[in-house]
Amino acid sequence: MGEHSSKKYDEELEAIRSKVLLMGGIVETQFLDAMTCFRIGNLERAERVMREDDTVNQLEVSLDDACSHLIVRRQPTANDLRTVMATIKVITDLERIGDEATKIARTAKSLHSRGQASINHYEMVRGIANSTSDMLHDALDAFARNDGAQALQLIAQDAVIDHEFRSIMRNLITFMMEDPRTISAALDTLWVAKAIERIGDHAKNIAEYVIYVVEGRDIRHTKLVPQLQDDTPE
Amino acid sequence: MGEHSSKKYDEELEAIRSKVLLMGGIVETQFLDAMTCFRIGNLERAERVMREDDTVNQLEVSLDDACSHLIVRRQPTANDLRTVMATIKVITDLERIGDEATKIARTAKSLHSRGQASINHYEMVRGIANSTSDMLHDALDAFARNDGAQALQLIAQDAVIDHEFRSIMRNLITFMMEDPRTISAALDTLWVAKAIERIGDHAKNIAEYVIYVVEGRDIRHTKLVPQLQDDTPE
Repeated sequence: MGEHSSKKYDEELEAIRSKVLLMGGIVETQFLDAMTCFRIGNLERAERVMREDDTVNQLEVSLDDACSHLIVRRQPTANDLRTVMATIKVITDLERIGDEATKIARTAKSLHSRGQASINHYEMVRGIANSTSDMLHDALDAFARNDGAQALQLIAQDAVIDHEFRSIMRNLITFMMEDPRTISAALDTLWVAKAIERIGDHAKNIAEYVIYVVEGRDIRHTKLVPQLQDDTPE
Repeated sequence: MGEHSSKKYDEELEAIRSKVLLMGGIVETQFLDAMTCFRIGNLERAERVMREDDTVNQLEVSLDDACSHLIVRRQPTANDLRTVMATIKVITDLERIGDEATKIARTAKSLHSRGQASINHYEMVRGIANSTSDMLHDALDAFARNDGAQALQLIAQDAVIDHEFRSIMRNLITFMMEDPRTISAALDTLWVAKAIERIGDHAKNIAEYVIYVVEGRDIRHTKLVPQLQDDTPE
């Protein structure tokens, strides 16, 4: 690729990456808004999360398209192509994070409108929500700065989130057994915890793609990555 | 692209597509084996599902790689590139189906080794498992034959699966409330149902990519596709 063409490629790639980061900012806000709705039943926030889902979906389609066009027009070399491939995968993960945030908002809205929400339910997932929110933020930051070292640290973080999820599930089972009338609300809390845990999985995927670009190797499914041994109950 | 280069491209693409279909066959078998383990507690089958997960993961990495190399070497035009892009996305969905099948096998194994499995639990998910297995098979068939019409039919099928899932959840809540001692086993059944419902989502994604290739348009997130309104409890 000549210098001129390479410069064009860099510019176009940067424009795509900026839009991916914009998309990342939107899904981060969706997640925070969904948790606020779960905490205090702010239904207006829940509606906003659901509305933003359309924006995120449109961004996914247009960014996939922009990546295709970049490949066709600039015919990147193996190294540059690796970056575009990773970007395409990151876009998919961001869209799924938006989906999970939307599910949280919908569940929170339903729980509050049935009058079954309690601060205890929020307290149960507060820890995992904070860890996951930090992890997502750091994953986007690692993507923005192409920081392989930061991305590598995040991968270990996912195991912590999985552990928190299993502990929440055990607690919820105890509560349900003690008072079967709370089963329906406890299950809603469990879906929220599950959606948060999935957001953690997607953040881990993003971190893996950053490492793939920076290190030039595919670390998915290798020993380097602590594999998720179990995300179902014992 | 010259005729010679185009022929090479076609050959290489066909080689990739055959391997994707092989991967599809493996995850289909994983899903069936996992359900057999859930039904009759065949632990050897569960082990096989988990072993196959490694094969599926390796296929994902090597196929992503093959797609990158195809793009670099053959520099496909917009139309051909669309096929490669769709293939890359299908590979991701197949890998996730393998993950979900592995979760089912793990849950089934745990349920049986705790002596808590009952034929009632299997009966509750039998319907959704059969619908989803058919849907996955048809999605792979539509992908193999580039059959946009068949793919379009499948997208409506996903709404049926979501409906079945919500009905299972309502039943399980009733059971749990009637006998809190069954909560732990009921939750395991719920995770199995949830994993099946996710396999249906991935099969729908595959169908959407087939349509994207055949029709040359991106139907994700459009009115044509009945959007999943809710996969959390009412």
